[in-house]
Amino acid sequence: GFATVDHDRGRRCGLPEVVYAEHKTPEEVIAIVDALRERSGYALATRVKEADRPALRAAWSGVPVQEAAGAGAFLVGSPPPLVGLPPVPVVAAGTSDLPVAREAELTLRAMGQSAHRITDVGVAGLHRLLERLPELAAGRVVVVIAGMEGALPSVVAGLLPAPVVAVPTSVGYGAAFGGVAALLGMLNSCGSGVTVVNIDNGFGAALSAGRINAL
Amino acid sequence: GFATVDHDRGRRCGLPEVVYAEHKTPEEVIAIVDALRERSGYALATRVKEADRPALRAAWSGVPVQEAAGAGAFLVGSPPPLVGLPPVPVVAAGTSDLPVAREAELTLRAMGQSAHRITDVGVAGLHRLLERLPELAAGRVVVVIAGMEGALPSVVAGLLPAPVVAVPTSVGYGAAFGGVAALLGMLNSCGSGVTVVNIDNGFGAALSAGRINAL
Amino acid sequence: GFATVDHDRGRRCGLPEVVYAEHKTPEEVIAIVDALRERSGYALATRVKEADRPALRAAWSGVPVQEAAGAGAFLVGSPPPLVGLPPVPVVAAGTSDLPVAREAELTLRAMGQSAHRITDVGVAGLHRLLERLPELAAGRVVVVIAGMEGALPSVVAGLLPAPVVAVPTSVGYGAAFGGVAALLGMLNSCGSGVTVVNIDNGFGAALSAGRINAL
Amino acid sequence: GFATVDHDRGRRCGLPEVVYAEHKTPEEVIAIVDALRERSGYALATRVKEADRPALRAAWSGVPVQEAAGAGAFLVGSPPPLVGLPPVPVVAAGTSDLPVAREAELTLRAMGQSAHRITDVGVAGLHRLLERLPELAAGRVVVVIAGMEGALPSVVAGLLPAPVVAVPTSVGYGAAFGGVAALLGMLNSCGSGVTVVNIDNGFGAALSAGRINAL
Amino acid sequence: GFATVDHDRGRRCGLPEVVYAEHKTPEEVIAIVDALRERSGYALATRVKEADRPALRAAWSGVPVQEAAGAGAFLVGSPPPLVGLPPVPVVAAGTSDLPVAREAELTLRAMGQSAHRITDVGVAGLHRLLERLPELAAGRVVVVIAGMEGALPSVVAGLLPAPVVAVPTSVGYGAAFGGVAALLGMLNSCGSGVTVVNIDNGFGAALSAGRINAL
Amino acid sequence: GFATVDHDRGRRCGLPEVVYAEHKTPEEVIAIVDALRERSGYALATRVKEADRPALRAAWSGVPVQEAAGAGAFLVGSPPPLVGLPPVPVVAAGTSDLPVAREAELTLRAMGQSAHRITDVGVAGLHRLLERLPELAAGRVVVVIAGMEGALPSVVAGLLPAPVVAVPTSVGYGAAFGGVAALLGMLNSCGSGVTVVNIDNGFGAALSAGRINAL
Amino acid sequence: GFATVDHDRGRRCGLPEVVYAEHKTPEEVIAIVDALRERSGYALATRVKEADRPALRAAWSGVPVQEAAGAGAFLVGSPPPLVGLPPVPVVAAGTSDLPVAREAELTLRAMGQSAHRITDVGVAGLHRLLERLPELAAGRVVVVIAGMEGALPSVVAGLLPAPVVAVPTSVGYGAAFGGVAALLGMLNSCGSGVTVVNIDNGFGAALSAGRINAL
Amino acid sequence: GFATVDHDRGRRCGLPEVVYAEHKTPEEVIAIVDALRERSGYALATRVKEADRPALRAAWSGVPVQEAAGAGAFLVGSPPPLVGLPPVPVVAAGTSDLPVAREAELTLRAMGQSAHRITDVGVAGLHRLLERLPELAAGRVVVVIAGMEGALPSVVAGLLPAPVVAVPTSVGYGAAFGGVAALLGMLNSCGSGVTVVNIDNGFGAALSAGRINAL
Ligand SMILES: Nc1ncnc2c1ncn2[C@@H]1O[C@H](COP(=O)(O)O)[C@@H](O)[C@H]1O
Ligand SMILES: Nc1ncnc2c1ncn2[C@@H]1O[C@H](COP(=O)(O)O)[C@@H](O)[C@H]1O
Ligand SMILES: Nc1ncnc2c1ncn2[C@@H]1O[C@H](COP(=O)(O)O)[C@@H](O)[C@H]1O
Ligand SMILES: Nc1ncnc2c1ncn2[C@@H]1O[C@H](COP(=O)(O)O)[C@@H](O)[C@H]1O
Ligand SMILES: [Mg+2]
Ligand SMILES: [Mg+2]
Ligand SMILES: [Mg+2]
Ligand SMILES: [Mg+2]
Ligand SMILES: [Mg+2]
Ligand SMILES: [Mg+2]
Ligand SMILES: [Mg+2]
Ligand SMILES: [Mg+2]
Repeated sequence: GFATVDHDRGRRCGLPEVVYAEHKTPEEVIAIVDALRERSGYALATRVKEADRPALRAAWSGVPVQEAAGAGAFLVGSPPPLVGLPPVPVVAAGTSDLPVAREAELTLRAMGQSAHRITDVGVAGLHRLLERLPELAAGRVVVVIAGMEGALPSVVAGLLPAPVVAVPTSVGYGAAFGGVAALLGMLNSCGSGVTVVNIDNGFGAALSAGRINAL
Repeated sequence: GFATVDHDRGRRCGLPEVVYAEHKTPEEVIAIVDALRERSGYALATRVKEADRPALRAAWSGVPVQEAAGAGAFLVGSPPPLVGLPPVPVVAAGTSDLPVAREAELTLRAMGQSAHRITDVGVAGLHRLLERLPELAAGRVVVVIAGMEGALPSVVAGLLPAPVVAVPTSVGYGAAFGGVAALLGMLNSCGSGVTVVNIDNGFGAALSAGRINAL
Repeated sequence: GFATVDHDRGRRCGLPEVVYAEHKTPEEVIAIVDALRERSGYALATRVKEADRPALRAAWSGVPVQEAAGAGAFLVGSPPPLVGLPPVPVVAAGTSDLPVAREAELTLRAMGQSAHRITDVGVAGLHRLLERLPELAAGRVVVVIAGMEGALPSVVAGLLPAPVVAVPTSVGYGAAFGGVAALLGMLNSCGSGVTVVNIDNGFGAALSAGRINAL
Repeated sequence: GFATVDHDRGRRCGLPEVVYAEHKTPEEVIAIVDALRERSGYALATRVKEADRPALRAAWSGVPVQEAAGAGAFLVGSPPPLVGLPPVPVVAAGTSDLPVAREAELTLRAMGQSAHRITDVGVAGLHRLLERLPELAAGRVVVVIAGMEGALPSVVAGLLPAPVVAVPTSVGYGAAFGGVAALLGMLNSCGSGVTVVNIDNGFGAALSAGRINAL
Repeated sequence: GFATVDHDRGRRCGLPEVVYAEHKTPEEVIAIVDALRERSGYALATRVKEADRPALRAAWSGVPVQEAAGAGAFLVGSPPPLVGLPPVPVVAAGTSDLPVAREAELTLRAMGQSAHRITDVGVAGLHRLLERLPELAAGRVVVVIAGMEGALPSVVAGLLPAPVVAVPTSVGYGAAFGGVAALLGMLNSCGSGVTVVNIDNGFGAALSAGRINAL
Repeated sequence: GFATVDHDRGRRCGLPEVVYAEHKTPEEVIAIVDALRERSGYALATRVKEADRPALRAAWSGVPVQEAAGAGAFLVGSPPPLVGLPPVPVVAAGTSDLPVAREAELTLRAMGQSAHRITDVGVAGLHRLLERLPELAAGRVVVVIAGMEGALPSVVAGLLPAPVVAVPTSVGYGAAFGGVAALLGMLNSCGSGVTVVNIDNGFGAALSAGRINAL
Repeated sequence: GFATVDHDRGRRCGLPEVVYAEHKTPEEVIAIVDALRERSGYALATRVKEADRPALRAAWSGVPVQEAAGAGAFLVGSPPPLVGLPPVPVVAAGTSDLPVAREAELTLRAMGQSAHRITDVGVAGLHRLLERLPELAAGRVVVVIAGMEGALPSVVAGLLPAPVVAVPTSVGYGAAFGGVAALLGMLNSCGSGVTVVNIDNGFGAALSAGRINAL
Repeated sequence: GFATVDHDRGRRCGLPEVVYAEHKTPEEVIAIVDALRERSGYALATRVKEADRPALRAAWSGVPVQEAAGAGAFLVGSPPPLVGLPPVPVVAAGTSDLPVAREAELTLRAMGQSAHRITDVGVAGLHRLLERLPELAAGRVVVVIAGMEGALPSVVAGLLPAPVVAVPTSVGYGAAFGGVAALLGMLNSCGSGVTVVNIDNGFGAALSAGRINAL
């Protein structure tokens, strides 16, 4: 009764509805995931609060589950087969940005796609990024994740003709304002071909990159 | 002496450097446009201040020029031939958003691509949008432009599997905060597959959509 | 001594004073509720902190109490009889917005009115809302509750001639800024007939809707 | 071509579409007003920029026109007959808030309703408001307009059982932040039954008050 | 070693230095209070974190101590004798604002002055304030404390010729932004003779009122 | 008709109502000033827009008028006699802050009081302030005006036992945010006895200082 | 009378006081510059408003004057001799940032130092910067100026052991918020050795760089 | 696998890479510190979360470790020998700012440099600072740390010719906004030669001061 699942979304938009768990009780999350799995065989739940994760892990102990460590994202049930698209490069500026990268990767997996991870290549040590250029260039679309000043997408977009989906993260303190500094940096990128999603929104970046990769 | 034009950008990123004119004198704009035209035969200048536009129109009176009305964007010289890609649907929520739409269209043209415009289909009168669904569905990627609460991209993304590039505009007053309300709305879109560019940045949306359309 | 209860408010404004418990000790809440119940037979306390709820449930264990789950609102004592007005449609965009909806419903009940709940009809899956149009149209006034981009009131107001009271919620993260994105979206609604209350303020929305419904 | 007028809105929502002129050229405003007048015999245009007003006055010199002084709102053509509802009290805290009050009044007129104006009754001289209480109490719904700290709606709502639609204005300077201080004050009103519209949005307040008054 | 106490401040400014404990360890607070008591016989510490209060109560169990309940302010040692000035009216809009009022009262006591408390007289029930006018008028200076929209100082200043020191509080939620709404309301007060201190700063309001009262 | 002058304010609060001209037409300002002068023989109008000043100067050419240069404040008619109180020191950190200082001085004059001006004694050259200490110490209350980082009131309050009324100004650029930096600095003053008024509000500071000086 | 020039500042801090002209009348600027020139033979005035520049150019037509084009900074009189320090590299990300660069250069000149300008080397085309590395490495301290996302200082600081003074500029639009995006980017720089000055504050950057260069 | 340590940074920038621990798991911190120590013999980790500190202390119990109390900074292994530069004066306005001062000192130590601490010399008691002037003047560069209104750097820079690196702290409450008030105050400093780092960023201030001191 408490949910009106949009069961038609898979057909309309390419991915069944995903459960945004942050403001829901574990009971609500489980019930909606069950309803979705009944239809599609699997379901993705994101942003499960840290305190609720053990309960969900227990509830789903008999089911195949993939979890994005540190992010509270769960892919429950048998995910759809891989559709054979080239992996999407998912670039994280620092080790601290990894949970967001993992959320993006799990979301791509839920879409039947895969990711290629490149970590710790922030702009304060440029050579690290330049060495990985061929791996970046192999993607049809690139996801770039960075906190603090969020400068990495500008640099990446200046090196490649592929579209760049930029994800600001809440990594930082003080005037980072929980990711606002990185968000503004990315919105004002002087690099061309950069678009932006919400702070820490690895999920949304993957949805968009997956739609692009599927073209 | 005052500019180090990135003449290599066309090769690297698919579009030669574009002149961001807002904080430049008309003399500077003309000189950089000339330098770019010498290389590529054409150049795009965006965000020419209203007061400087007559001077630039005069300076370029002997050259083929396309101007995005109300936006201060100029495509100077013979634009590159159309590359034969499907037109990108450029959707504007209201008539007031048209200058931003025109900037996007001119930028696509500078990339050798074209646009299909759909106007005045805001969410307060849904039937207007629903009637245009086939035209929207013909695009491989859709640009959606809206001011005020910026709700249109959420609705569009819920109807289609294509990636949506959302452009918040400064249309509105009071708590619209010059486009911030629309920007935040789009960043928090509950629709999947939406990415966002800066306020009034039709140029950046087109760059990204053009990169996607070219895949 | 610590409170000067406004015992005349029921006569003047149609509802006795309500206890805003968030910044009060449980002892203070109990004492003021007692003073109000002595006068009216019942009292409403809102925004009881999670940690204080068990203490209050215990204190009122011998009294009829209705609680709005997840919201910390308590209607203590025998509520006033229903006055026979049509129920107010209370629309929540997502499951996560339910606590706010329940606060609104309990407040309406304290006014001798009732609510009709419609849940999980967000704008990313429009058909869900359109199917419920007759239920919405049955209301003289509609309460619409949404977080994230807060677009739902614009769409509802475009479908109906009734006044819409919009409640932004703190559901969301990052650039949702604890409900600010939804608040700004609603304040800039392009839909006509929308007015707005504070973030998560189901109580205030119900007070206003109740005053309107009573005309 | 540049506009898709929502001609059905009058039937659906009780008032035909209104032209928001601030970001449109005078030519666009005139064309859309003409299209609307052809259907309904009259049209309302709001927030015409100061510089554009003389051109519009000239263009409409042969037509009956009512103008809200200082607000740039125009009611063009023969407005609909008055429907016989009680006038809506429109209360302005100070003389400086009058343009917003006039915009509200003209909008009510476009809905076939009327207003009763009460001016300069701010909270720093309470007796002025208390003397006008009977006039306030005659309304089924009250519009209260105030800038600076925006305290007036709280006081009015504490004196009456009618719903109060509050309009913050940009009157003030410094930390008034163009109306933000008043907006926040009203959103946090301790008075019950207050809902809020955008800064300087006399139009929106009237739309809502008119919907309420028509119940 | 870790502190350079300003032992001369009492002579220069009328009150010895006060310990701002919020960002200090309990050990640091005790040491500085000891140093101050050695000089003056007493010391005031404000904003002791909730978790540190039991330790400080224990440490000072053998000394006369007055504590401002809910505020974490402690007056340790024998306070200076009362200097015989009229009490300062300390007005709190709601019960929730009491901790701030108590901090102000304790600070006045540390200055050898006293307070007269008036509580729960917010603007949504004006009669409560008007009944207390004679008590207010007895003060040479008035401290007015309010959260939410912070309207009370405007009303008080409009009724009296005395200077009003206004204290915004963090009481409220959502768009109250932790006291910002009340702060802005007070800074934009249309009442004359109102000055403002920081959010929840009962201490600062008392220092200023005490300086004024001592003239 | 458009104004309800609070003619009783002089009796109640010590100064007749003052005209806040910024959002009024010159005609409205003249009419209200006339109404006030009829009662009291003089009137104060503040924040007259630069463009409106010549018209007002012309309109009042036959009357004694004092104008605060750069501030748009006018004292029209014969001001009340000086009441014989000690002058209020009005301290401006820089030359750029002088218009605000002049507004404060003119307001004090309208209250029958006088000011003693001390200019250009900012904290970057401390000796300038220390040399003027005796002049500062002669005041019963001190008005301190500063832009940029707004540090001067903290320093002054640390040198004196008198209450300090601090006025942040909009002098500065970039991250001064039109006076917000100075405002926040003053609200967080570590100096004791500092209270704050709105940005550029020399008028409000004088009202408060005048109330204090009159004790 | 209106200014208390800090004539001792040259001795104390290494540069005589500089006139901040933005909020002063031309007459005030001329008078203070004259007073300073009488002492030191020259004076620097910064941020002269565009409208006041012709008057100042005329007033100083008989004196040697250097002007920073586009910045409104004037070095009046014979500047001090060059002290023989290595030039300070002043790096501007784009052509649009040149006025700020020129203000920095003129300030260095007023300190008896010189600058080496490097322009249009933004991070979207990295090769441009890398080619200039030897010129950058020749500085003991580097000034880096950038608008939009302000990423350049992070990159420069990662390539060099010299201290970097970063200047955010107001170049950009929309969510650049007049330089706030660049400011936040620089404050959160992941590059080591970066410190920041106010938006567009070429003057302050040069003061600091000059102090460092003089060590 | 999860980190790409920039082992070349020591050679390029003068200090090996430092671990920013706030958003990393203890396991990640230990692993990266180990990798760095293998190369350089020591490593610095900053901003270790309070809850993680005991685990790290235990893990490093057999290694020489220096910890900055209250700051979560750890210098693990044998730090590099002191290079014989004059100590950097590190000035903290209040006792509450000490953790930030300690982080700066430990960072200098990791660079082979040393600090001279001066505490509790805030601007509300100026004599405390003036007494320490000789100690300040002995530095080639000065680090100044302050919360609340952040005025101390302006005063220090006005007394000395050395460059001042200013660190705003999050000490304060209410309108201190977690250090924003101090940050803005420092960015708008009227003192010359002040540059600023992020809130609470003692680490970054030391990096910059160390680079300067090494010139
Ligand atoms: N309207 C625009 N919005 C954002 N960036 C732009 C715009 N027009 C041009 N640019 C970018 O601005 C940069 C040029 O800056 P500049 O060197 O100052 O001319 C290039 O990277 C362009 O891609
Ligand atoms: N959840 C709520 N949100 C906003 N206002 C409330 C809420 N609950 C009660 N109130 C109002 O808070 C005021 C009581 O405040 P107090 O005197 O502090 O108890 C009354 O005017 C109530 O109408
Ligand atoms: N509650 C408070 N709010 C604001 N300032 C305070 C408070 N308590 C003490 N202070 C001031 O904080 C300063 C002491 O700071 P510290 O040296 O860190 O102890 C003194 O100037 C006090 O006057
Ligand atoms: N462009 C500028 N930006 C920031 N501060 C400045 C600027 N120009 C001058 N100043 C400082 O402003 C102060 C002078 O202020 P005033 O007394 O109002 O002229 C001096 O301390 C100068 O060092
Ligand atoms: Mg790293
Ligand atoms: Mg339209
Ligand atoms: Mg849902
Ligand atoms: Mg008035
Ligand atoms: Mg109450
Ligand atoms: Mg000066
Ligand atoms: Mg360039
Ligand atoms: Mg101290």
